[in-house]
Amino acid sequence: MSDKAPWITFRPELKVLDCTIRDGGLVNAHQFSDQFVRAAYCTCVAAGIDYMEIGYKNSPRVFPKDKFGAWRHCDEDDIRRVVGDHDPVKTGLKLAVMADAGKSDWQTQLIPAADSVLSTIRVAYYAHQVSEAVDMIYHATELGYEATSNLMAVSSITEEEIDTVLEAIAPTPASTMVIVDSFGYLYREQVDRLYHKYSEALAGTGKEIGIHAHNNLQLAFANTIEAIILGCNRVDSTLYGFGRGAGNCNTEILLGFLRNPKFNLRPVIEMIQNHLLPLRKELDWGPSIPYHITGQLNQHPRSAIEWREGATPDDFLSFYDKVVSEV
Amino acid sequence: MSDKAPWITFRPELKVLDCTIRDGGLVNAHQFSDQFVRAAYCTCVAAGIDYMEIGYKNSPRVFPKDKFGAWRHCDEDDIRRVVGDHDPVKTGLKLAVMADAGKSDWQTQLIPAADSVLSTIRVAYYAHQVSEAVDMIYHATELGYEATSNLMAVSSITEEEIDTVLEAIAPTPASTMVIVDSFGYLYREQVDRLYHKYSEALAGTGKEIGIHAHNNLQLAFANTIEAIILGCNRVDSTLYGFGRGAGNCNTEILLGFLRNPKFNLRPVIEMIQNHLLPLRKELDWGPSIPYHITGQLNQHPRSAIEWREGATPDDFLSFYDKVVSEV
Repeated sequence: MSDKAPWITFRPELKVLDCTIRDGGLVNAHQFSDQFVRAAYCTCVAAGIDYMEIGYKNSPRVFPKDKFGAWRHCDEDDIRRVVGDHDPVKTGLKLAVMADAGKSDWQTQLIPAADSVLSTIRVAYYAHQVSEAVDMIYHATELGYEATSNLMAVSSITEEEIDTVLEAIAPTPASTMVIVDSFGYLYREQVDRLYHKYSEALAGTGKEIGIHAHNNLQLAFANTIEAIILGCNRVDSTLYGFGRGAGNCNTEILLGFLRNPKFNLRPVIEMIQNHLLPLRKELDWGPSIPYHITGQLNQHPRSAIEWREGATPDDFLSFYDKVVSEV
Repeated sequence: MSDKAPWITFRPELKVLDCTIRDGGLVNAHQFSDQFVRAAYCTCVAAGIDYMEIGYKNSPRVFPKDKFGAWRHCDEDDIRRVVGDHDPVKTGLKLAVMADAGKSDWQTQLIPAADSVLSTIRVAYYAHQVSEAVDMIYHATELGYEATSNLMAVSSITEEEIDTVLEAIAPTPASTMVIVDSFGYLYREQVDRLYHKYSEALAGTGKEIGIHAHNNLQLAFANTIEAIILGCNRVDSTLYGFGRGAGNCNTEILLGFLRNPKFNLRPVIEMIQNHLLPLRKELDWGPSIPYHITGQLNQHPRSAIEWREGATPDDFLSFYDKVVSEV
């Protein structure tokens, strides 16, 4: 039993990434008004947040522009329309986008970093796509971006697959390897095991470990602070937990936990009150019983999302019976 | 890094106590219909839950019967009207009530256990009331009940006060010493410290350690499973998290985590759908920003509850400004 209380001090190297627009956009096909995205941007700046993930850099062939909003593709002009000639030094905020293996025209969609307001490309991929992910990381880095490695759905693959991914990622210039709990399935011990596995495999490479948690079991914040305690220095969260399905670690709770005085909770609460609360009346996200059920079964939340969007969103018992019968 | 996955096995000695009626009753002055309490009782039996806390054994002088429902006093006749001649052996369920130091006429309110359907008296007290709590524990035990020791608001007292309480409780016949996070303030490390402190102070007494978590920071379930991992064998939860303020650890998530095949999730989901969802439309509970704020400040949720019951429950910013200015 330590006599220290580490929860009242802070690590200056810990960086927060707010992915509200990117992950929340999965709820509304990224159909945000410019006003909403600008408010989120101003909030991130005012709150002292380190990174804002402003959307996906995904292919308009896969996600047609008549069905998906601008934040699914993040064309430079669209971003600049909202953030102007964003300056990461003056604002203290870096802008990031996520590019998926298999869903991005990354060879043609990325412009040189010197011509972009973006600083960071987060490369998201499933284990079987790691070779493309490695190419994407090199490509983004050569264009002058920081690139990160986001292995999705890590709870659904074997130890050997994880080891193989880590071996492939270790020599790349990715700045960060993110523990991504896509299904909201992980318990603390599993976060611990993954953290140690990732950090041992990447020792000496200078890479940071990140955490991206989902809230199916009301564990997103708990797993995030667990990862922080272990040593994760890249932490994802969203305003009011806005994100696909059960949503994410709440930025407002996370900032209240972090003791770095550069963070400011007040603009986050203001943004939630003015923009997220009204949105929550239109859109469904956050922990609810269908997400608990898929989370505990280590399933993609797809079936729960469909149920919540269907005719009987509160008929939890029929959803439970359906899922249990299909396992 | 252990090679074992303890989260897929179970400890048979771990007992779940559902305190929906007792803690949820703090939201509605215990004004439940008999039908609601009976449904909760039948759910506990069907779900394989070990203890049901059916209310408070509190004084009708302090809580007048014209303002507070029957479950604030738990007269034997009221309980029997709902549960009949409840049999703990046949049902596998023990009935419990909570008696508060300073608020109970425990000398006169308790009848001999042989004449009651109740098995367990949970003695709740603040540190400065420990002497009365000790008397209550002896009295309840002499009447034939199991008695437990529930030191409330442990996050707001000093180490020395906790040590003194533990010294006073150790020689009593209390079966269990419960870690009670009344303010929803504790993080995992703090749960760990308290667990070790409690178990070291009570070593050799045969007492179990319990956990009662509140959800101000969305950590009720996380802290509960942390306590379980450490060795807690008495675990509190409520249906749909129904409880004062931010609510409690959700029974439905907890049962999904526990692997003891005696537990059955389906009746819990049915109860929630039929009784808790409709109630949630009338009453406010569960994590929301005012509770995050009081939780992170280690304050009683009183001010947040008043705010949520007031004219502008969603004006989070004004609540934040008010609380910050008053700290």
